[in-house]
Amino acid sequence: MFETALTRRLKLVHPIIQAPLAGGGDTPALVASVSEAGALGFIGAAYLMPAQIIEASRAVKGRTARPFGINLFVPLRAPETPRDLGPALEHVAPFYAELGLPPPTVPLSSADIFGEQLAAALESGASVFSFTFGILPTTAIGAIKDRGMFLMGTATTVAEAVALEKAGVDAVVAQGSEAGGHRATFAADFDAAMVGTLALVPQVVDAVTVPVIASGGIMDGRGLAAALALGASAVQLGTAFLTCDEAGIPDAYKAAILRAREDETRLTRAFSGRWARGIVNRFMTEVERAAPSEAILPFPLQNVLTRPLRNAAAKQGRAEFLSLWAGQGVRLARRQPAASLIAQLVTETDAVVHRLAASR
Amino acid sequence: MFETALTRRLKLVHPIIQAPLAGGGDTPALVASVSEAGALGFIGAAYLMPAQIIEASRAVKGRTARPFGINLFVPLRAPETPRDLGPALEHVAPFYAELGLPPPTVPLSSADIFGEQLAAALESGASVFSFTFGILPTTAIGAIKDRGMFLMGTATTVAEAVALEKAGVDAVVAQGSEAGGHRATFAADFDAAMVGTLALVPQVVDAVTVPVIASGGIMDGRGLAAALALGASAVQLGTAFLTCDEAGIPDAYKAAILRAREDETRLTRAFSGRWARGIVNRFMTEVERAAPSEAILPFPLQNVLTRPLRNAAAKQGRAEFLSLWAGQGVRLARRQPAASLIAQLVTETDAVVHRLAASR
Repeated sequence: MFETALTRRLKLVHPIIQAPLAGGGDTPALVASVSEAGALGFIGAAYLMPAQIIEASRAVKGRTARPFGINLFVPLRAPETPRDLGPALEHVAPFYAELGLPPPTVPLSSADIFGEQLAAALESGASVFSFTFGILPTTAIGAIKDRGMFLMGTATTVAEAVALEKAGVDAVVAQGSEAGGHRATFAADFDAAMVGTLALVPQVVDAVTVPVIASGGIMDGRGLAAALALGASAVQLGTAFLTCDEAGIPDAYKAAILRAREDETRLTRAFSGRWARGIVNRFMTEVERAAPSEAILPFPLQNVLTRPLRNAAAKQGRAEFLSLWAGQGVRLARRQPAASLIAQLVTETDAVVHRLAASR
Repeated sequence: MFETALTRRLKLVHPIIQAPLAGGGDTPALVASVSEAGALGFIGAAYLMPAQIIEASRAVKGRTARPFGINLFVPLRAPETPRDLGPALEHVAPFYAELGLPPPTVPLSSADIFGEQLAAALESGASVFSFTFGILPTTAIGAIKDRGMFLMGTATTVAEAVALEKAGVDAVVAQGSEAGGHRATFAADFDAAMVGTLALVPQVVDAVTVPVIASGGIMDGRGLAAALALGASAVQLGTAFLTCDEAGIPDAYKAAILRAREDETRLTRAFSGRWARGIVNRFMTEVERAAPSEAILPFPLQNVLTRPLRNAAAKQGRAEFLSLWAGQGVRLARRQPAASLIAQLVTETDAVVHRLAASR
């Protein structure tokens, strides 16, 4: 149903991709359910160790023989650790105390394990490889293509999309400003690159020859039909899959999405040090109010610093300390199995196209 | 073509509205060409004196017998003039000098002429009345409806749309974050209310029973089809009409739109004191860099303060000092007569719907 350049190439039944949800959202059960339903499930492997990547992909393959994807972050230069980490630690210390944790310690840059992650991803059996935060090194691109994997990069501007195509990707994910989670921006100012999905997609489609995947704010069949109308060959949905039964995020996080309004998300650096869209909560508000920008560590150090907090908050069911990544379509979130979501998306899209055709 | 609740009610051939372009863009020639082509032209009357409103509507009616609309700003409480106007004047003085103008003088709040503007609008012969920046006073709403005019308010969030419906509007314009020009936001934080069109429209459609008009980033048939897919009953385009032959903006402004990239617009208060999206230029950059937020006067005082500058810059063809309002779809702008734009929008939309229907 809804055949496009991408569904043909990737042998998908539907032009629907479950966005990589690094951080626990995309359990093997979710990824496999999505792929089994004829869409494309994705393992967000950026925070996984190589052994975990192998384990997760094995679990997916145990549940479905259909294609799935794997995603990594482009390795960034290790951030310079600020000389004085005191302010950064001070600003999170009260929250550590409130959750009954020992005081925060100096976050250490983890060793660069991209090479090992990539090696594991190449062995994962995934047929699609996607990346974000930049352009992969040429050697990595070569290795992925040698494996016969379909390669997708993520862009937030036309120039980024063009740069990705030049680097050899097979498709571009156009991430509009509505999108939840981390911004992919790598060759533009983060503010300037906040281009709405409806404006971004057709301008990217005009500038590249590879298929374009629309992401940001798409939650139902109306959004899917709109994205196809804009010229996208598929859609990538994150928030819509987070409230699915199989998604691995804490219940408090799912509840927060199901309660949120469209004007209750915003970009923040408070959780990870890199701009990402999430539902406004107490941690975001208080850290942003108290901490000058320099007191928020660069990515991924701030992420390491806040991880114990987020883990403890998840166990205690306290959404006020979780990074509640979500897009601006939150009011349209539904709690159901992933297969039902996909079936519903398809039925709704079909109805929309039928309505449009009838109004001509 | 593309019959919707709104085309039937307003007797339009196409579900296309030319956004009110207060400030000279929407000449009677543009408004009449748009209406004559079967879409809805709009006189942006907010900055017009009552006599000018009568004159403009007479000029439109001299060119077409088809329906057109008129737009006013909701009267805002007169802003408190800062005690010390020195900094605001200082920050624009060098630009005055550069353009060969005498030094800037203290901007005066113009008398509140909303009552007279409204009276003129009621006599204008327009069949549609739209407003932005809030909700009209009950008496004004009553007077407009007594005239049999179709009433539209502008919302940037679901809550604003619901409030407008409660106040009695016949349709809601949902202004997404991509939109050029002034933000309509009146019951939310300006930042929080930056919701992308693709996410905003379906959430507004679900929340109100009146027809919804999509605006923000729509430039071609792909955008029009997408908006209809999202549930909109019509689209409102501003930037797309600004580069039409009949539009009354300076050539330097048209050239700036035709040259701009999607990541070259941003919100600014530098020109009018109220948040609006425009193409980044020297005035915006330099005022924002030099002036603390308090040194930019509240709307409409800053607008009065910068008007002589903008008028002189228009005469001298210097886009660096103009308020280059434009949305994020700028790369899709085309220079042509308005009737050609409308014909093209319809042909393109038709092709998109045909493509979608064929891919099922």
